[in-house]
Amino acid sequence: MTHYEIIDKKKKKLALSEAEIRFFIRGVTDGTMPDYQVSALLMAICINGMDGGETFFLTDAIKNSGAVTDLSKVKGICADKHSTGGVSDATTLIVVPVLAALGVKVAKLSGRGLGHTGGTLDKLECFPGYNICQSPEEFINIVNTAGAAICGQTGVTAPADKRLYALRDVTATVDSIPLIASSIMGKKLASGADIIMLDVKYGSGAFMKTRERAAELARVMVDIGKRAGKSTAAIITSMEQPLGNCIGGNLEIEGVLEVLGGADNDLAKVSRVLSERIYLMWLSRTSDRPPGAALAAKAKTEVEACIKDGRALKKLKEIVEAHGGSFTGKFEKARFVRIITAGSSGYITKIDTEKLGLINVALGGGRLKQEDVINHRAGIKLKARLNTFVQKGDTLTELYSDDPAAAEGAERACAAAFTITEKPVTPPELIAEI
Amino acid sequence: MTHYEIIDKKKKKLALSEAEIRFFIRGVTDGTMPDYQVSALLMAICINGMDGGETFFLTDAIKNSGAVTDLSKVKGICADKHSTGGVSDATTLIVVPVLAALGVKVAKLSGRGLGHTGGTLDKLECFPGYNICQSPEEFINIVNTAGAAICGQTGVTAPADKRLYALRDVTATVDSIPLIASSIMGKKLASGADIIMLDVKYGSGAFMKTRERAAELARVMVDIGKRAGKSTAAIITSMEQPLGNCIGGNLEIEGVLEVLGGADNDLAKVSRVLSERIYLMWLSRTSDRPPGAALAAKAKTEVEACIKDGRALKKLKEIVEAHGGSFTGKFEKARFVRIITAGSSGYITKIDTEKLGLINVALGGGRLKQEDVINHRAGIKLKARLNTFVQKGDTLTELYSDDPAAAEGAERACAAAFTITEKPVTPPELIAEI
Repeated sequence: MTHYEIIDKKKKKLALSEAEIRFFIRGVTDGTMPDYQVSALLMAICINGMDGGETFFLTDAIKNSGAVTDLSKVKGICADKHSTGGVSDATTLIVVPVLAALGVKVAKLSGRGLGHTGGTLDKLECFPGYNICQSPEEFINIVNTAGAAICGQTGVTAPADKRLYALRDVTATVDSIPLIASSIMGKKLASGADIIMLDVKYGSGAFMKTRERAAELARVMVDIGKRAGKSTAAIITSMEQPLGNCIGGNLEIEGVLEVLGGADNDLAKVSRVLSERIYLMWLSRTSDRPPGAALAAKAKTEVEACIKDGRALKKLKEIVEAHGGSFTGKFEKARFVRIITAGSSGYITKIDTEKLGLINVALGGGRLKQEDVINHRAGIKLKARLNTFVQKGDTLTELYSDDPAAAEGAERACAAAFTITEKPVTPPELIAEI
Repeated sequence: MTHYEIIDKKKKKLALSEAEIRFFIRGVTDGTMPDYQVSALLMAICINGMDGGETFFLTDAIKNSGAVTDLSKVKGICADKHSTGGVSDATTLIVVPVLAALGVKVAKLSGRGLGHTGGTLDKLECFPGYNICQSPEEFINIVNTAGAAICGQTGVTAPADKRLYALRDVTATVDSIPLIASSIMGKKLASGADIIMLDVKYGSGAFMKTRERAAELARVMVDIGKRAGKSTAAIITSMEQPLGNCIGGNLEIEGVLEVLGGADNDLAKVSRVLSERIYLMWLSRTSDRPPGAALAAKAKTEVEACIKDGRALKKLKEIVEAHGGSFTGKFEKARFVRIITAGSSGYITKIDTEKLGLINVALGGGRLKQEDVINHRAGIKLKARLNTFVQKGDTLTELYSDDPAAAEGAERACAAAFTITEKPVTPPELIAEI
């Protein structure tokens, strides 16, 4: 078997065998397959595709290219959730305490934000003292005592994926469902949970621009999870506007606390559905009761109850403190505020969500390069959502920054991110498919 | 414009513009496009193809990436021929003197043999003293005085093609008609002739294994030539067996002298058709007579006459001497001869021509690496051709080598290259299409 023969086979649109895929990923990991051969194969996969079996073996090989988290010492069944990335998506900070409050263990490895999308680790660092670097032993210990832990990765997870991604990024081979699905699921399977819940975003703020592509990606990822023997499900949600009303560290934490305090909005809706679906999969594996409508109703009721009675909020405090963070409940804002108002009266029919994410970066609330430092006090507060009617002069957003020039510079771009028309249009469904 | 955008466009099966193709080849030539991007684009071209316009611009950009031969000082219209490579294909050494004897100028830059195929320059060096390295001035001078010159390349011709070919060779992207056609025609157009005749081989000894692929390649190359303003034509010929009866330096020269002495065989047939077609294109451009059957008949008659009356043979001597070679007419053979005989009686229905080419290399008559030295005394003499009936024990071939171990080692492989069956099959047409 040679790398040349594998490239030639995929060029001819033939399915690669398990052995061939493992040989390919071994060559990617140990460097014996040179860049020019890897990129030729990536292009052939991108154009000619991969079937379900190939995609699963690719995912499994990527998972096994590096460290795999050992959760055998966690007492109970572990659940994990993954969002494909968006703007103002703080669902993890709501779903994880809800589940932990209901007895579902969550051992979560999260990432940082990059570009227009935010990251859970950055948000957690808004709690002063929160330590995202825990030893593997301490990580398991927090899961067993607080019910959930959220940290950064320690070992080198899926190094093959890092090399593949770097090459895809410069050879126009990012946009391939088998390659995206194996990249996400390879890392997800390496984190060891038994239950995997996927939130696949579509729209102007997501990597998948259409609902159809998002649904296809979700289908392929669920198939991979099931082939790996995991309980796996996915929902498709709209990112045609920021999920919550806040973008940027401290502002988003305030949004999370509102939801855990009982507020009902899009962020609350998506968080509840994610929690219910994970809890239902957990119940199906742990309770004696048969799956069906009754069990689903039980899941729904219990999720709602544990938010309503304050258990989930209390659990968030417990999790934060278990990581060394202090849960003050008070979050500072940046010094300079600019109010962006509607230039005309009408309905908001479009919000360029990716642009809002990038404006947050410009205000200091995000990062373009991995080494950028985030200012948690900066961000954007949305005062109007899709399909609402605004009068000329009504507030659309508030921009927060400690840099007055940045705040001023973002004004025009922020106004341009909103499209206001005379007639309303049908807004996209928030939760398009389960 | 970026290389990334060009890759992305071809990945989506869109046609590249002239500017994009020239930008790509500039990046290949000056090194600003890294290997991994070039190979991703090559794979996208290989799978998604290129239309006639794209293929022409690619060819023209490859041609202009290096030195272009200036034939403006040649007195008369220049013709060139190109074979896609085969075994025992010495047509150049017959066609060139025939044409020169008829007044058609030939300024030919040839190559060396590699792998199973032979090269014209190696064959010319069988004439002691023949100098394949002539200055550009001397090259033109020989064309004007002897009527034809055959040399190696001096300047760096089509450096973009060298880099592309090296990458194609290791990324399974050799087998693409737009890439093959632009590689051949880019170099051919750089050598400056007005008339281009292509001999596209198919079969067991050729790069194109089927007649259909060879015909498609011929069609695309003729289209490129015409778009470049050249008189261009092609024939498709069989390489299901060696074209001549001799493989290897001195043996092949003897075969050439037989044909120029009036012998009629496959080598003679193909050489005559190539000569006639080129001469007809030349007549169409130079004579007042209208094109048509009469002109074609004139071309055929004159080609036959100049072989029959010895003018072509005399011209070959003149050309060889103009390059410093001595035309002795005596060619030594290697010391050790092995006779390979038929293991059973029956019809020869298959000859593995590529294998015979490689056996010639093993005997010392060819090269696997560019730095290998060729022994002109070594080679293979074919005593039986496709569809002939042989009795068990009849001679199939004679192997010549100065290394007795090599000759002995080649015996078994040589016998295995012939398939003998009870019933005959329809042999492939020698000249399949014009």
